[in-house]
Amino acid sequence: MLNNISYQNYQKISADIRAIDYALSIISWDSQTVAPKGCFEDRGEYIANLSKQRHILATSKEYVSAVKELYTQKENLSDELLFEITRVKKDIEQLQKVPADEYAEYNYLISKAEMTWQKAKSENNYQIFAPVLKQLILSTKKLVKYWSTPSLKGYDVLLDLYEPGYKMSKYDKLFDLLRVKLVPFIKKISEKGYKPSNDFYGSFPIEKQKVFQKYLAEVMCFDLEYGVLGESEHPFTNGFSPSDVRITNHFYENLFTSSIFSALHELGHATYERNVSKDLFNTNSCCGGTMALHESQSRFYENIIGRSYDFWKIHFNKLKETFPKELKNIRLKDFYQFVNEVKPSYIRVEADELTYPLHIMVRYQLEKEIFNDLIDLDHLEERWNELFYEYLGIKVDSPINGILQDSHWSGGAFGYFPTYALGSAYASQIYYSMKKDFNIKESLKSGNTKDINDWLKDKIHKYGYSKSTKDILYIATGKKFNPEYYIKYLINKYSKIYDIK
Amino acid sequence: MLNNISYQNYQKISADIRAIDYALSIISWDSQTVAPKGCFEDRGEYIANLSKQRHILATSKEYVSAVKELYTQKENLSDELLFEITRVKKDIEQLQKVPADEYAEYNYLISKAEMTWQKAKSENNYQIFAPVLKQLILSTKKLVKYWSTPSLKGYDVLLDLYEPGYKMSKYDKLFDLLRVKLVPFIKKISEKGYKPSNDFYGSFPIEKQKVFQKYLAEVMCFDLEYGVLGESEHPFTNGFSPSDVRITNHFYENLFTSSIFSALHELGHATYERNVSKDLFNTNSCCGGTMALHESQSRFYENIIGRSYDFWKIHFNKLKETFPKELKNIRLKDFYQFVNEVKPSYIRVEADELTYPLHIMVRYQLEKEIFNDLIDLDHLEERWNELFYEYLGIKVDSPINGILQDSHWSGGAFGYFPTYALGSAYASQIYYSMKKDFNIKESLKSGNTKDINDWLKDKIHKYGYSKSTKDILYIATGKKFNPEYYIKYLINKYSKIYDIK
Repeated sequence: MLNNISYQNYQKISADIRAIDYALSIISWDSQTVAPKGCFEDRGEYIANLSKQRHILATSKEYVSAVKELYTQKENLSDELLFEITRVKKDIEQLQKVPADEYAEYNYLISKAEMTWQKAKSENNYQIFAPVLKQLILSTKKLVKYWSTPSLKGYDVLLDLYEPGYKMSKYDKLFDLLRVKLVPFIKKISEKGYKPSNDFYGSFPIEKQKVFQKYLAEVMCFDLEYGVLGESEHPFTNGFSPSDVRITNHFYENLFTSSIFSALHELGHATYERNVSKDLFNTNSCCGGTMALHESQSRFYENIIGRSYDFWKIHFNKLKETFPKELKNIRLKDFYQFVNEVKPSYIRVEADELTYPLHIMVRYQLEKEIFNDLIDLDHLEERWNELFYEYLGIKVDSPINGILQDSHWSGGAFGYFPTYALGSAYASQIYYSMKKDFNIKESLKSGNTKDINDWLKDKIHKYGYSKSTKDILYIATGKKFNPEYYIKYLINKYSKIYDIK
Repeated sequence: MLNNISYQNYQKISADIRAIDYALSIISWDSQTVAPKGCFEDRGEYIANLSKQRHILATSKEYVSAVKELYTQKENLSDELLFEITRVKKDIEQLQKVPADEYAEYNYLISKAEMTWQKAKSENNYQIFAPVLKQLILSTKKLVKYWSTPSLKGYDVLLDLYEPGYKMSKYDKLFDLLRVKLVPFIKKISEKGYKPSNDFYGSFPIEKQKVFQKYLAEVMCFDLEYGVLGESEHPFTNGFSPSDVRITNHFYENLFTSSIFSALHELGHATYERNVSKDLFNTNSCCGGTMALHESQSRFYENIIGRSYDFWKIHFNKLKETFPKELKNIRLKDFYQFVNEVKPSYIRVEADELTYPLHIMVRYQLEKEIFNDLIDLDHLEERWNELFYEYLGIKVDSPINGILQDSHWSGGAFGYFPTYALGSAYASQIYYSMKKDFNIKESLKSGNTKDINDWLKDKIHKYGYSKSTKDILYIATGKKFNPEYYIKYLINKYSKIYDIK
């Protein structure tokens, strides 16, 4: 370790910044889980102020020169510290380009947008959200302008925030590949005309869903001594520190599988955050890595494990025990087919694995048009619905089944959605690598995911954000990223289910 | 309003400090309601850091000189601003006496103590809490040393934090008066040997208790658009801002009246915070006043209103509707007598109005001995039990019925308890003044406390912390504080209930 003044200053001010980030995260968790609706005007001011204080610290002369000075000493830094410093330096440079007041205003706007979106969604009325969404897009466009460089412009600026190095040119290629390979395959499936049993629709008491969620948390070895299972409009995970990782869920009485797969998804994120090496505590790398890598973990548990036959072979009995009346006539095979039914549907988070990327493409295409200035912001909903019909072939019947369904935009997270598809692709590659190391099917018989968690911890999670996704993926799989694994995984799995040769 | 640089600096830095205080409050709410037990080590570091950042702001040259400069311009300040500046100046002077690191350490210790107390209480094991309590007392004694002045020493330093100007000499007088007047009266009551119906012990489902709590919140006109009803080990109220006021409660299946009176108590605090004038938002006076004044509001609603016959005449039917089976054979009169039964008991927050001050005296006496260095800190529990026997005449049978019952000490709040008794005395004086202005009994027939809320808002709440308690009490009652009202109220009420001439 370096032991000079720059390093000390860097550590000291980083700790101050992290403390404010921690506070902002707790406030955000509170906003989404418990805060009263009427508080958001006042709350917005406090959030804006804390963001301002953070901004002042992160752009302070002392901090900036410490980071720059450390960066010039590259050769004396460990690989991990160099990676961290490079990241922090980039963040600072971006912050420096935004006037402090404007940044505070942007944060105020986000806290307002989150609450407005909640209201709009609960009333199924897009018009409530439309003006603040427009404002938020305009503010984000200003940020994009500040952050543009000769090699990074428009939408690419935002994509780079969530998956550094992944631009439109790369995403376009990925989505083209998925379209070419998956769309005809989906067509073949729909031609089969198979419909699973419809005994899954009915009333599934929410209290029982919560009981089963708790069971799933145990299966995933999620330790409630260091975790919370909460409730919110949109499921999410918050890793405040490895000793405090929280997931939320949303329970629908008439759709019990929703809370199951959302739980598995969020528990995937949570396991990642929980498993970050304790050595990284009190550093800026003590959290999960890039968004796509994070989504690879959630999608891995939700789908590759959570929608697998091997998983339900072990846990289906417990599910029937929990819902003895409701699932009386249901067999394991029915359930497996039901949760893997390929069928275009409205809600992204409920979508099957095969049509899921199409949901992402809708959002990707729309964000591209928005941030490359190709669309009138007063017609976002129409365009959303148009694109949805184009990709999924069904007509959106109401805003909550359309543009209001996701929370991301209300949090200012433009450029985030594509990481779900990329993460799913990473997850498949990781899966094939894990399969080489041990027999996943056998291991699931133990009743929990301990072996899987341990493997992922050792190959991915423990590194936190101390390495690039490229490097971590190489450590975990011995290969560069190759989306063909994703195609292979999907086609293998669904060919069997739908008996396609 | 002043319009100079000192004023601007004062406002600017005050806003920054308030934003950190806001964050710390939310974190504290989170700790007490939802945070996982295992998080507190990491959390403590963040809290210590935020407290340090707060300390740096509050003792910064810019802030200190702004405050001092404004103070020298006394004659140009409004009464309210002068009151605020005087208060802030005193706070700063205290902070300046504590080294920043020590202050951060103290805050770390508190976050640890809160969680240790919770664990100790849940396991009914004082030994778990004892070492951290001792540490906390030693740290507090160091603060007391820093803050001592020729006219304020030992325990008085702490008392002054919660009710400025109220020292041992005054509290001793108050408690002597209460002892002289109430102890013989309680003796008379116990000689009557009256026992209310014991049909109140049984099983009262917690979900129904929550339903009734919600009803009480409506009765008290507590608007859930701006409020939350939460759950925690020890009931408390948090007023983050007038647009976000939260109470918590603790529900015992076998003691349904506990949650009723705790709810009324906390709703009293909450109504105060909600009613602070909006004009005070973004000032340091936008919160309730001194602790005793705050407790006067909670004790007013809990007891003077909440344990009155007139109140239950209106709401008893709803209670029976909520618990039709459980309260089948109970009449209003039985219930009224039950909730006003005078009987020494273990738990302060469940105590009747007459023995309540005795619970306070136990804690007051012990704190006095602790902070005037009259007691060995390794024998706190023994002393607690000894004093309890002396004042209440019953032997403590387990730590949760004794020294572990209250959360206050774990939060470092030494010197707080006496404000409950003082607040109760204020409440009685306020009651007699209110009675002159309108017919409380008639007003309660409307089914809610709107008239009462409005009166209190106009006479007390709206001022927030912009005036001294002395001044507010004078505005509200037209008189200086006089504890005889408290005696009068208690003896009147209980003479009727126990038929004492």
